[in-house]
Amino acid sequence: MKDQTSNSWEQRDMHNVFHGFTDLDTLNRNGPVVLTHGEGIHVFDVHGKSYMDANSGLWNNVAGFNHRGIIEALCDQARRFPGYHAFFGRIADTTVALSEKLIEISPFPSGKVYYTNSGSEANDTVVKMLWMLHRRNGQPQRRKIISRVNAYHGVTVATASMTGKAYNAEFGLPLPGFLHADCPHFWRFGRAGETEIEFSQRLARNLEELIIKEGPDTIAGMFAEPVQGAGGVIPPSEGYFEAIRPILRKYGIPLIADEVITGFGRTGAMWGSDKYNVQPDAIVASKCITAGYFPMGAVLLGPDLCAALTAVSEKAEEFPHGFTAGGNPLGSAVALKALEVLETEGLLENVNRLSGRFMSGLRQLGEHKYAGEARGVGFMGAVELVADKATKVALDGSYQISERIANKALEKGLICRPLGQAIVLGPPFVMTEVEMDRMFAILADTMTEVFAEVGL
Amino acid sequence: MKDQTSNSWEQRDMHNVFHGFTDLDTLNRNGPVVLTHGEGIHVFDVHGKSYMDANSGLWNNVAGFNHRGIIEALCDQARRFPGYHAFFGRIADTTVALSEKLIEISPFPSGKVYYTNSGSEANDTVVKMLWMLHRRNGQPQRRKIISRVNAYHGVTVATASMTGKAYNAEFGLPLPGFLHADCPHFWRFGRAGETEIEFSQRLARNLEELIIKEGPDTIAGMFAEPVQGAGGVIPPSEGYFEAIRPILRKYGIPLIADEVITGFGRTGAMWGSDKYNVQPDAIVASKCITAGYFPMGAVLLGPDLCAALTAVSEKAEEFPHGFTAGGNPLGSAVALKALEVLETEGLLENVNRLSGRFMSGLRQLGEHKYAGEARGVGFMGAVELVADKATKVALDGSYQISERIANKALEKGLICRPLGQAIVLGPPFVMTEVEMDRMFAILADTMTEVFAEVGL
Repeated sequence: MKDQTSNSWEQRDMHNVFHGFTDLDTLNRNGPVVLTHGEGIHVFDVHGKSYMDANSGLWNNVAGFNHRGIIEALCDQARRFPGYHAFFGRIADTTVALSEKLIEISPFPSGKVYYTNSGSEANDTVVKMLWMLHRRNGQPQRRKIISRVNAYHGVTVATASMTGKAYNAEFGLPLPGFLHADCPHFWRFGRAGETEIEFSQRLARNLEELIIKEGPDTIAGMFAEPVQGAGGVIPPSEGYFEAIRPILRKYGIPLIADEVITGFGRTGAMWGSDKYNVQPDAIVASKCITAGYFPMGAVLLGPDLCAALTAVSEKAEEFPHGFTAGGNPLGSAVALKALEVLETEGLLENVNRLSGRFMSGLRQLGEHKYAGEARGVGFMGAVELVADKATKVALDGSYQISERIANKALEKGLICRPLGQAIVLGPPFVMTEVEMDRMFAILADTMTEVFAEVGL
Repeated sequence: MKDQTSNSWEQRDMHNVFHGFTDLDTLNRNGPVVLTHGEGIHVFDVHGKSYMDANSGLWNNVAGFNHRGIIEALCDQARRFPGYHAFFGRIADTTVALSEKLIEISPFPSGKVYYTNSGSEANDTVVKMLWMLHRRNGQPQRRKIISRVNAYHGVTVATASMTGKAYNAEFGLPLPGFLHADCPHFWRFGRAGETEIEFSQRLARNLEELIIKEGPDTIAGMFAEPVQGAGGVIPPSEGYFEAIRPILRKYGIPLIADEVITGFGRTGAMWGSDKYNVQPDAIVASKCITAGYFPMGAVLLGPDLCAALTAVSEKAEEFPHGFTAGGNPLGSAVALKALEVLETEGLLENVNRLSGRFMSGLRQLGEHKYAGEARGVGFMGAVELVADKATKVALDGSYQISERIANKALEKGLICRPLGQAIVLGPPFVMTEVEMDRMFAILADTMTEVFAEVGL
């Protein structure tokens, strides 16, 4: 630990906080990093050390950590109406205004918004929506949920079951009936001699086989991130969504776009669904919706799913579901302002202006001897490390190579994220050229040092 | 609808918002109530009409709707550090301070806090904690979760499965392995000639039979609200927790107190667990933790469960679970201030000072010809309506008696909550004598009018 005095922030943390998604070996050795404030894209710890956060917090703090406009919008709303629920037909005016705005900027011609406090809750909500819909429509057996290997949809029991990561075996998950289709990662899963389009078509055929094998009328819906995020930044292979979309339509299976990471500009488009022609029946949003200044999730129901769900809810008298703080006025004011900032302060433009520079920085890292692939889109990217570029074989796990690189980068004042054997970057939308160049320079130095340290 | 102009707040709501836990018949007929702000324990709609909220929002807005101190604490933190996550061993100082405070005021001599955005997420998290714990400790079959009839633990797929309400059948829930023990409601379920203590002992015997029938080593844990809240305000029968506690210990089954409603003073004690001698292994908190000004949930792990879970997480390298906004600094600052307000501004004292008056007001309503039981504790209560006091037979469902009373009260400017055939009250902790008397007077008038209207 950095500070061993018994009443240090670090000690107080270790005595009172149970940490999730934290390597406990590293934590027990180094202690926590206790943060006090942020300025632009940097955060500062209790010892005054600053860190450039190349991951926007967790993809969400896209306007930096002290955006005056969003902070003042939050304070204004707090003074006017800080908290209320949206049950029993009651709702805050600000939440109505946000709903209108969300439908306006959505890919849908019309629709309705349902609010939660997180992306996990939003995905979990859609599962329940689909189960109620099919059950009321005479298909109670339509319960299976399809997601994909390497997908990330959340951490509730149901959404962890949808998440296609090995660590969920710790909980005995996935639950039965949660199926994982192929991951559309051409570099990793493409066959020798297969084109990218052929790969996408093969995955679509596999999906249809899965549906037929399971029974088409047992499938409640399919969830997909336009770009897999926590799976390691995996943009879909060329033609992927075009190939799977008709199959899902053929069997009446709704497609839900999980845009928790890709929504609101991360790919350079407002929605990943636009970028990759997903044509979803509903969109799950969170994270950037409040620029990371408030917990919020939202389900944007497209017109068809909305009408169908409204009809069955009326038959049932209500949609018997809701989160206490879902659609509260404070979060709604923050979201309204965050979306305004995104559109009017050039954030979306900056992503598009600098995404070329970002991708070329990634590709440069990708030339490293142990880099297998540099991939990404917009302001999300990853460098996948391998033992051998040609065979794509992973480095020995004992190197803990990505964890080491992230820890060393942290020492140097750069926050990046290890994911499997990849280093993931998701910079704030306000990052400048100078900051971007500095980010890549630190990371390049870090990789050189770490590979030397481990003797590679 | 109140306002039929096409751009009214009500119309904008109906076009863009999908409402949960809302009677759609009432909504389609009357439109939503769109709110702009609050003053003290009143909220105001877009037409300037005020409503006394006798339910503290959803049990949570206990300090009123415009508490300056909490608002300014929120704004101060927003200006300093509005948002960060608590993954990867990083955490905001404010969150460390809150964790220390929560363990200090908890019934536990030591322990750790895990953060979520809601009570649903917190209960869902504990399910995963228990599953991981037992699996890592060589009992992967220990997965069944016991809760109780009329319990409310949330709305995620897993927590809705724990919730013991009939409406979850709409979703084909509960999932297999979610068991519901008896509801400790003596008035409703006590047998002729049985004392309340005997009733509690019978329920404990039933619980043990359930455990034995299912197989003790298949039970992961039991969740219980010290007072069932959304089930209709049901304090436990006398001796209930004393009767079940040894049985759970005997079979090594952790007991989780869901204090989402009862935590932080609702019963007059800081914890319902103190009031009713629950002796839990962990506490799930939410709602009042931020006085309704911020979405937050927290799992307070007692020392034994915390040590066991830490040990297995270290073996697994991490506890692979986390919510993006869980433990963020803004919510932590709000919670710290809300807890200070609770303790230093006389809120807890006010609950205790006026709970006698509250109970006597309830009992007076309970003398109504069609009132079967008036029950409650602290600042939570219910009047159960029946067709016949002696037989306790419910009124014909077609009367929609509680929904009618709530709608009529709303017209009169009072928000109360229909739950089954009960009217539930959960006033803000800052309610005065005068306001309390007015609440009961409006409710008495409303009941008289509604029973006359339906011809009873």
